[in-house]
Amino acid sequence: MNNNHLQVSNLGEKKLIERIIEKSKNLYNESKEGFLKDECNDFYIGDDSTLINLIADYSTLNKNNYNNSHNNSYNNSYNNSYLVASTDLLIEKSHFPKEMSYFQMGKKAVTVNVSDLAAMGAKPIGILISLAIPSELKLKFFDELIDGILDACSYYKIPLLGGDTNQSEEVIISGTALGEVKKEKTLFKAGFEDGDLIAITGPIGLAALGFEIFNSKISSKSIKKSLDNHEVHRNLMDYEVHKKNMDYEAHKNNMDYEIPSDIVDLAIDKVLNPIAKLNEGIILSGFASSATDITDGLASELYELFNANKNKNPDSKLGMIIYENKLPILDEISEISEILNVNPLDLILHTGEDFELLFTIKKDNLDKLYQLNKINKNKFDFYIIGEINNKDTVEINDLNGNFKKLSSKGYEHLSK
Amino acid sequence: MNNNHLQVSNLGEKKLIERIIEKSKNLYNESKEGFLKDECNDFYIGDDSTLINLIADYSTLNKNNYNNSHNNSYNNSYNNSYLVASTDLLIEKSHFPKEMSYFQMGKKAVTVNVSDLAAMGAKPIGILISLAIPSELKLKFFDELIDGILDACSYYKIPLLGGDTNQSEEVIISGTALGEVKKEKTLFKAGFEDGDLIAITGPIGLAALGFEIFNSKISSKSIKKSLDNHEVHRNLMDYEVHKKNMDYEAHKNNMDYEIPSDIVDLAIDKVLNPIAKLNEGIILSGFASSATDITDGLASELYELFNANKNKNPDSKLGMIIYENKLPILDEISEISEILNVNPLDLILHTGEDFELLFTIKKDNLDKLYQLNKINKNKFDFYIIGEINNKDTVEINDLNGNFKKLSSKGYEHLSK
Repeated sequence: MNNNHLQVSNLGEKKLIERIIEKSKNLYNESKEGFLKDECNDFYIGDDSTLINLIADYSTLNKNNYNNSHNNSYNNSYNNSYLVASTDLLIEKSHFPKEMSYFQMGKKAVTVNVSDLAAMGAKPIGILISLAIPSELKLKFFDELIDGILDACSYYKIPLLGGDTNQSEEVIISGTALGEVKKEKTLFKAGFEDGDLIAITGPIGLAALGFEIFNSKISSKSIKKSLDNHEVHRNLMDYEVHKKNMDYEAHKNNMDYEIPSDIVDLAIDKVLNPIAKLNEGIILSGFASSATDITDGLASELYELFNANKNKNPDSKLGMIIYENKLPILDEISEISEILNVNPLDLILHTGEDFELLFTIKKDNLDKLYQLNKINKNKFDFYIIGEINNKDTVEINDLNGNFKKLSSKGYEHLSK
Repeated sequence: MNNNHLQVSNLGEKKLIERIIEKSKNLYNESKEGFLKDECNDFYIGDDSTLINLIADYSTLNKNNYNNSHNNSYNNSYNNSYLVASTDLLIEKSHFPKEMSYFQMGKKAVTVNVSDLAAMGAKPIGILISLAIPSELKLKFFDELIDGILDACSYYKIPLLGGDTNQSEEVIISGTALGEVKKEKTLFKAGFEDGDLIAITGPIGLAALGFEIFNSKISSKSIKKSLDNHEVHRNLMDYEVHKKNMDYEAHKNNMDYEIPSDIVDLAIDKVLNPIAKLNEGIILSGFASSATDITDGLASELYELFNANKNKNPDSKLGMIIYENKLPILDEISEISEILNVNPLDLILHTGEDFELLFTIKKDNLDKLYQLNKINKNKFDFYIIGEINNKDTVEINDLNGNFKKLSSKGYEHLSK
């Protein structure tokens, strides 16, 4: 194929991002540990968030010790914490199911950005939000959107630090979350060692099930009831611009099945009201050997850790194994998957949006984490699903005891 | 009018932003000087960028003086610099004239964000860029876009710190610039005093003229030649998705006038290749009493300063006067304005995108700035256009010596 005719979708999101990182490396010096060096500060890209190694600015602060601070060499005149920054852009048609209210859209935009801080073990400093909205958008929906953003800020206890407002044909929300993390406590994707356990912070697959339910022809009664519980406000009759995309009424008259409404409720809630595991990330920052958030599916994220280790240690033979019988799967997911004619493992392994954390942890630290859980009111559940080995591959041990190489398939934007 | 039927365009961008700021203030405690306080850090919103007052993290760094640093009270355990953050979202149809290449779009996205740092006198730490692009976009245009972003990063000497890539129907670029500025050197919109001079860093109105030229029926020959000089790559034939918006060929056959191609060149260059006055901002941070960047027109920005002072000091009677005969206006702007049947003062006062800095400065500091200019290789031009007085209004003294209240009209998104 002539290069001139290649489209971005021939590469897909991940290759495009690699392409940007490669191009940008030419601008800087590469130093040890993958940190890049510009004229002043070091920074590290390619993980869930960017780490910025700021030079400490405390000279006046310690003016009594000014001579002393002058004696510090350049290398230790950095802050003890990294500044952590992450940005995520959400676009109505791609990222927000049409069943989602404006309030929920605002909440989700904050959540996806906070989740990237959580994955690094960072404490938030705040978030900046840029908005683009149709000029015909009703003011009450604008207010809902802002209320959703502020509700999430309040939930995660982070300030809204600023932003920008623009006009567009659909709702676009771009967030940049800023945080800080002690250098020695930072959670990278790489860092695990042979024998470490692999764990996740909660059951996964529910969000995937929710999306399947929205896309399916299952009973409108269950969905309608569940949506009513969630007070969906993005009413198509009120919002002329997007009428063509909001065929909920049409959808309603075309149903084949009915499924238990409690599980519909759970699955839909996971899609409409995702929550970032921020406190879990902060607690894990003292214990885990690596971490990432599960946004593109468990399999895809396991490979993120696997590849991060390979990038850092090209000769490493570290591999991963997960056990199907250890995966926390709700019985109902299997049940409904059958009705929807989808493979439940596909939902769990290859579809994202759960916003749980995937992490690795040394056995010693696991005991400490259990102890901490006993005394801590911020207790959190986690599930051991596998372990790090020396087999240089990512495998699943299925219910029949067979070992299979895991496919790295996951959700990817801009991919055909 | 029933509130239920209000659309966002009934309020416009500025009122919407005020609405967001009001709503978000409920989340925090308001402290002196307009700084808001959350659980950890103070921050200041409502200027060109957000200022974040981070707690200094240097305890291990100074472990020899640990006892001493413990003696610092909570209030002076902050950094000496503010972390400065600003975000701007650019959307193809709203922000990029169709004559702009992908390379230039990438450059502009960096420039608008850097300009907000410049307006605060901040030194950049880096920039995060989120992209959304059509899946049909040719890879070569994607590469151009990235090259434009990196070219601007290289020009301003700032690292590209990370980002996000998504799918959309048009090109969307969201940037977040991070910087730092010594507390005592920060340039706010408020801060000027009676007798301070009002100045700008360069001639304005050229960008406005460029936009007028693109929107007009003047000679295609001048435009075509000028665009050829700029190697425009966003070729409509190559980019099917946006074909309907790119009617350059149609435009070409519909021209009435011909104007000198050198001024067309200058005006088009100002639109296609805007430059942020970053070094100027950093130099001014030691001298100016207030500053902002001119993005929505000179008049609108004068009112930004005027209103910022009013917000800070409600009883203040400080006002501004500018002199028409002191405005740096190229002769050709007047000439071409006549051909285009527009008022040249309208271009200069009420249209934006010049990215020059508007600042105020004490007379004493002006002399110091002239001295500095003599010895500094980073010399920059500036033009005194008026002064701060006690008349509690924003006026222009026109060519006939008449005093007129200046209209605050300027470019505003989401406004009818």
